[in-house]
Amino acid sequence: MSQSYKDIETPFIAIDRDILHKNIQDMQAIANKAGSSIRPHAKTHKCHEIADLQIKAGATGITTSKPEEAIAFINAGIKSVKICYPLISTEKIKKLITTAKQQNAEIFFVIDSRAGFEALETSAKEENYAAKTYIEIDVGLHRCGVKPDTPFLQDLAHKIQASDSLEFMGITSHAGQSYSANNPESAKDIANQEQAIMSKTAQAIKNNNIPVNQVCIGATPTLWVQDNFEAITEIKPGNYVFNDLTQKNIGIVGWDRLALSIITTVVSTNDAYMIIDAGSKTLTSDMGAHGTSNMKGHGIAFPLNTAPNHNTGMTVAKLSEEHGFIRHNGRPLPIGTRLRIYPNHACPVVNLFNELHIFEQNECKDIWPVIARGCVH
Amino acid sequence: MSQSYKDIETPFIAIDRDILHKNIQDMQAIANKAGSSIRPHAKTHKCHEIADLQIKAGATGITTSKPEEAIAFINAGIKSVKICYPLISTEKIKKLITTAKQQNAEIFFVIDSRAGFEALETSAKEENYAAKTYIEIDVGLHRCGVKPDTPFLQDLAHKIQASDSLEFMGITSHAGQSYSANNPESAKDIANQEQAIMSKTAQAIKNNNIPVNQVCIGATPTLWVQDNFEAITEIKPGNYVFNDLTQKNIGIVGWDRLALSIITTVVSTNDAYMIIDAGSKTLTSDMGAHGTSNMKGHGIAFPLNTAPNHNTGMTVAKLSEEHGFIRHNGRPLPIGTRLRIYPNHACPVVNLFNELHIFEQNECKDIWPVIARGCVH
Repeated sequence: MSQSYKDIETPFIAIDRDILHKNIQDMQAIANKAGSSIRPHAKTHKCHEIADLQIKAGATGITTSKPEEAIAFINAGIKSVKICYPLISTEKIKKLITTAKQQNAEIFFVIDSRAGFEALETSAKEENYAAKTYIEIDVGLHRCGVKPDTPFLQDLAHKIQASDSLEFMGITSHAGQSYSANNPESAKDIANQEQAIMSKTAQAIKNNNIPVNQVCIGATPTLWVQDNFEAITEIKPGNYVFNDLTQKNIGIVGWDRLALSIITTVVSTNDAYMIIDAGSKTLTSDMGAHGTSNMKGHGIAFPLNTAPNHNTGMTVAKLSEEHGFIRHNGRPLPIGTRLRIYPNHACPVVNLFNELHIFEQNECKDIWPVIARGCVH
Repeated sequence: MSQSYKDIETPFIAIDRDILHKNIQDMQAIANKAGSSIRPHAKTHKCHEIADLQIKAGATGITTSKPEEAIAFINAGIKSVKICYPLISTEKIKKLITTAKQQNAEIFFVIDSRAGFEALETSAKEENYAAKTYIEIDVGLHRCGVKPDTPFLQDLAHKIQASDSLEFMGITSHAGQSYSANNPESAKDIANQEQAIMSKTAQAIKNNNIPVNQVCIGATPTLWVQDNFEAITEIKPGNYVFNDLTQKNIGIVGWDRLALSIITTVVSTNDAYMIIDAGSKTLTSDMGAHGTSNMKGHGIAFPLNTAPNHNTGMTVAKLSEEHGFIRHNGRPLPIGTRLRIYPNHACPVVNLFNELHIFEQNECKDIWPVIARGCVH
């Protein structure tokens, strides 16, 4: 009972299954070659079936940002989740521990402050739980993370190791500044900096007689081009399963690696624009991760079943909440025409939908729920 | 069993009940004074309880964009809904008609093209239903809508009136270009233009012996300042229930009219920024409706329980998906501090949450579900 692109009400998210599989396999191959494990960030897909594909390909588990995301995946059957976010709420931490115990799942915490240490230790103690704990290192994004090469880092590592309730796992980082790279070489430079900082930081902690079993890094722009994984034990890319115009604009993937698109319909036309049924409540107003890209417009549209390239793509110039504007230069496509849009940033788009339509060629073969959609806490 | 701001997991949406009521009452008073009915656009709140408040205050029903939104509200008990979007899908139209029949609700359609006319007439005929139909007029936003003063408009009005399956109600417009107004006077100018175009257009259709019973206008920036409602029978503002920084920046409302804020927590700090647990999956990356405002940053933050003003507000400078960045100029607030953020654009923020927390002073008295959240179709 498969459906074609024209049988499904628009707007909807179409996932190309072949590209999805290729992206998963190729990143797994990068991890395998590096001798590191992979724990993909599930904030991108929020979908149990895709997490299962990643694990089947070799991933050791998943990464999430929000406790509610982790709980949704654990309750769906995922057995190992790292919550890569500096939790400081004992309520949230205790809920995670309770869920992990109930489902016999393994969870990992990440802290970067004294407040985070105290909240985690208090919670773990009260729950009589040994909380596996990473320290996040700031490798240049200047968002979360402890500065490497500081007494505070050594002190925090020591405190975790000395705690009866915590188990020190190692260090973790996210070189999100790679999203502002203009080309693959810049992304690779950032990858090298991250590897160097993390390798040196792990050694500095070891020099204080604290074992560092895990050195985890990763962002999609760096990992697609990274070649030096010395001292790295785990990678945690998220966006790579789909990729999007941000990755494409950096130059690390081509059109043939974009697994996610939005199918939309021309619903009205005026002198200047075709109006489509995909606005900011479908495409988001995101101009790229961390607001760092030089994106123009809100996605690039193509007629269905044409191969995408820069000569034929039509930029989504403006958005209202439920309308997108595409210039037509005097020759609008007829009302009712369906278009495929590649979004600037795939992750927040998925968060606006309840389901993903999984396509093989031109046939929708599966509909997968976005189980961790809207997990704000 | 009321909860304070500190008892609820962040991030969450806080609605100030007093301001919500005042906004509803004041817009109702504008409609009453104008001698027009009001049919608020529910895309802003997507919440049954708020629709009920609007109707209790005097609204004749609600407006929605998406059929799924309309169906959610009709199934919740709302008896009159105008779907102010150019539907061209017979499947969507038939679903609406079926729901309206089942729930004994009144629905109104809006078309702006021959394709829309044909889809609506075909659907209505097949469902043996008299579809109440508006024509949308483009009053300057240049999004959807028929150009006034054209043979096509007269032809479309005639076709609707001549159809056995359609009932011509009148004309409707949205002067969304008012979102780019820099001051109340500009917004008022746009309001006057809209009123003049709509009044003249209604007369032109009447001159062709087609009765025009309804002349519906409205956008929040125009309606807050509009004083000429001659020939207008209905207004349909949406954002006014909450208002947001976009309305504030135009200069038509003050801080004391912002009913919606997001409560967030400082979860980490670095040399330059405090990092909060509200990113683009909480605040959206929206810089204002229709992307037309001159917004800087992604919201303005205040310590809880301080009265907002421009001297003390802290701009949310950057967003990741689950992180917001606020500069601290060397004196970061402690990790764990809760902040109140007024968003650039309230409507898409609500669409990211499952519930609204309703506050009286500092106490949360109710939690209302966002029933039409994520109604993409």
